[in-house]
Amino acid sequence: MLTSMYRHHSKISTTWSNFIRSASQSAQKPKTAIIMLNMGGPQTTDQVPDYLLRIMTDRDMIQLPVQSKLGPWIASRRSEEVKKKYMEIGGGSPIYKWTDLQGKLLTQSLDKMLPDTAPHKHYIAFRYVPPFTDETLTAVEKDGVERAIIFSQYPQYSCATTGSSLNAIADFYKNRSLPNIKFTLIERWATNQLLAKVFAERIQEKLQLFDGRIRDQVLIMFTAHSLPLKAVSRGDTYPHEVAASVSATMNQLSVPNPYRLVWQSKVGPLPWLQPYTDDAIKAYAKKGVKHMILVPIAFVNEHIETLHELDIEYCDEVAKEAGIKQIERAAAPNDHPTFIAAMADVVARHINNGETVSRQFLSRCPHCVSERCKSSKEFYKKLCNYTDYEPELAASTV
Amino acid sequence: MLTSMYRHHSKISTTWSNFIRSASQSAQKPKTAIIMLNMGGPQTTDQVPDYLLRIMTDRDMIQLPVQSKLGPWIASRRSEEVKKKYMEIGGGSPIYKWTDLQGKLLTQSLDKMLPDTAPHKHYIAFRYVPPFTDETLTAVEKDGVERAIIFSQYPQYSCATTGSSLNAIADFYKNRSLPNIKFTLIERWATNQLLAKVFAERIQEKLQLFDGRIRDQVLIMFTAHSLPLKAVSRGDTYPHEVAASVSATMNQLSVPNPYRLVWQSKVGPLPWLQPYTDDAIKAYAKKGVKHMILVPIAFVNEHIETLHELDIEYCDEVAKEAGIKQIERAAAPNDHPTFIAAMADVVARHINNGETVSRQFLSRCPHCVSERCKSSKEFYKKLCNYTDYEPELAASTV
Repeated sequence: MLTSMYRHHSKISTTWSNFIRSASQSAQKPKTAIIMLNMGGPQTTDQVPDYLLRIMTDRDMIQLPVQSKLGPWIASRRSEEVKKKYMEIGGGSPIYKWTDLQGKLLTQSLDKMLPDTAPHKHYIAFRYVPPFTDETLTAVEKDGVERAIIFSQYPQYSCATTGSSLNAIADFYKNRSLPNIKFTLIERWATNQLLAKVFAERIQEKLQLFDGRIRDQVLIMFTAHSLPLKAVSRGDTYPHEVAASVSATMNQLSVPNPYRLVWQSKVGPLPWLQPYTDDAIKAYAKKGVKHMILVPIAFVNEHIETLHELDIEYCDEVAKEAGIKQIERAAAPNDHPTFIAAMADVVARHINNGETVSRQFLSRCPHCVSERCKSSKEFYKKLCNYTDYEPELAASTV
Repeated sequence: MLTSMYRHHSKISTTWSNFIRSASQSAQKPKTAIIMLNMGGPQTTDQVPDYLLRIMTDRDMIQLPVQSKLGPWIASRRSEEVKKKYMEIGGGSPIYKWTDLQGKLLTQSLDKMLPDTAPHKHYIAFRYVPPFTDETLTAVEKDGVERAIIFSQYPQYSCATTGSSLNAIADFYKNRSLPNIKFTLIERWATNQLLAKVFAERIQEKLQLFDGRIRDQVLIMFTAHSLPLKAVSRGDTYPHEVAASVSATMNQLSVPNPYRLVWQSKVGPLPWLQPYTDDAIKAYAKKGVKHMILVPIAFVNEHIETLHELDIEYCDEVAKEAGIKQIERAAAPNDHPTFIAAMADVVARHINNGETVSRQFLSRCPHCVSERCKSSKEFYKKLCNYTDYEPELAASTV
């Protein structure tokens, strides 16, 4: 299992100055920017301390008491352990490699599908490692594009993930005038049919590895990053959107296998959404289940939670100890042609339907009390040129 | 609002002996029984005490300490209050009326669609009021049908609802030999496209009541019965299936409105899945939302939770006090032609795909420790003639 993982990852030497230079040197002036948002992961172990520090001090992602003190302390305390994990998956995270490749293939597709908005060019804005939001937005402005599509790479929306990335864009424009670019936003795409299809194809690849006589009985266990119950109770839509992705995938897959959705990667002492993936593996093993597939359903690239937590900790260790006979882990969408088609389909539909920012995004969670969230929604109304039809009649979008 | 509710309900004089007699007198001998499972509701206030007693002592539905004592005590203490609520919605629950009408229309459709399995005849098996499982199964056997399709009327599966009804069937056959009937099971149908379509049509009916200038901004608030967090953590799939229904409905509806899924009808002091519907109405009102539609997404008939909790308590009282300008409540599917088509589609697909009992049903929740659940799954394997292909190779379905 360990050796197979190295195939997922190759060390990337691109530096950020190179990245921005190559952007400016592009042969044709881009007309449409596709800004791909994601958390990012350390490409080398040197980046681990800063990466952890940024996560631990991002209140959109994680809320700690006295965060400005406790965050850095936890980040520093966990650095060595996290470095070790990245060493075990080949020295760093492949998120940049996959995102950059996806962006290239996506914009090639879009140039063919949508001549009116071509040339399209992709830009990457990560939250916790470079390329950061600020340098990316600067590059987008410098390139003089006509329109920019902010495209979250998390298919399912959570305030902690896409919300955090969008707040970073709002922060950048806080003390700066908006450029003359038509900005629009794709903030969720959990049930795009081609996305469901690529997840189904990734599962089918693994189903084929099981003995034909029991293939129909393999338990398909969808797994996604868990969320604190506090966020669930506030009304974060992430668990519902993940469940909708699971349902859309099973409809595409069209097999009679049993399936479940469970939650991984809980941190800290507070209650999170359960059942947890590792506990579920153990519990099913006790019930006599011997064959299963783990399917990461809420992340489009391989990353530390697939390559280390699922592959090493759960498949190699937990499942083995629990007595599971065969466990496979479905690959992330990565550069699967169906996934590139899915991304292109999402962007093309967005361009064709003319919506600039969805009312679903502008609607806040029922129990949200965050002033940061409130002002961010106001910012996106301005950025994306959204007007309530009759603001005095309705205030349904706040 | 109150007067309009009386339209939903008319007093039903059918007695169960009449019901069973009319079943036996049917002109043509039925070939296929459609057994419609649901909780049922008291048709007259006289039935309230027994109805409550049965709910409060059903450990599949609700778990209380010293349930055999505490259950009856709570039932008796709540009888007067619950009777009063039924009086306020016209004297009783319309669940039987709707289920019986749906069954008649469904079997008429099936007779046309599926001549091979015709004549089809519907039977109703309620959990907490007559007609109970025992008398219904006795009637099915007496009619001498060739096959019987057990069809849960809860589109989304929960161990507390469909699970409880299915356990009642298992109880009936505990000390009795299985009849010579081909039994098969439809235990979930949350994302049937016609079901999503009828929900979408029910929402559209209400959207039309809003001023066209703000129609696109009306908040669509899907609401379903909540679940104790203990059941969520055990792995009950109900919240995911409800979320999948919401997503399928929004895809069918194809409007730009914001939408949310919230949870109603929590009872007792333990933590349940949140946000709660009434709290969400108040919280959105505070945020300035003035227009909304409540959509009961997990029940196919009007019942006390729509007619009293949503219409009287939330729409007439909570929303009014909170300052909501206009709130509408989408009707349940009831006898909408699209809903009858949805039911027929579910049954026809089930018959045509040849599956007798799904592996999804046979798979238990990861943290289930109920011996009753375990033996019930074993019972359905026998009842539906299910064979693991290679039981010695795989035990993936327990």
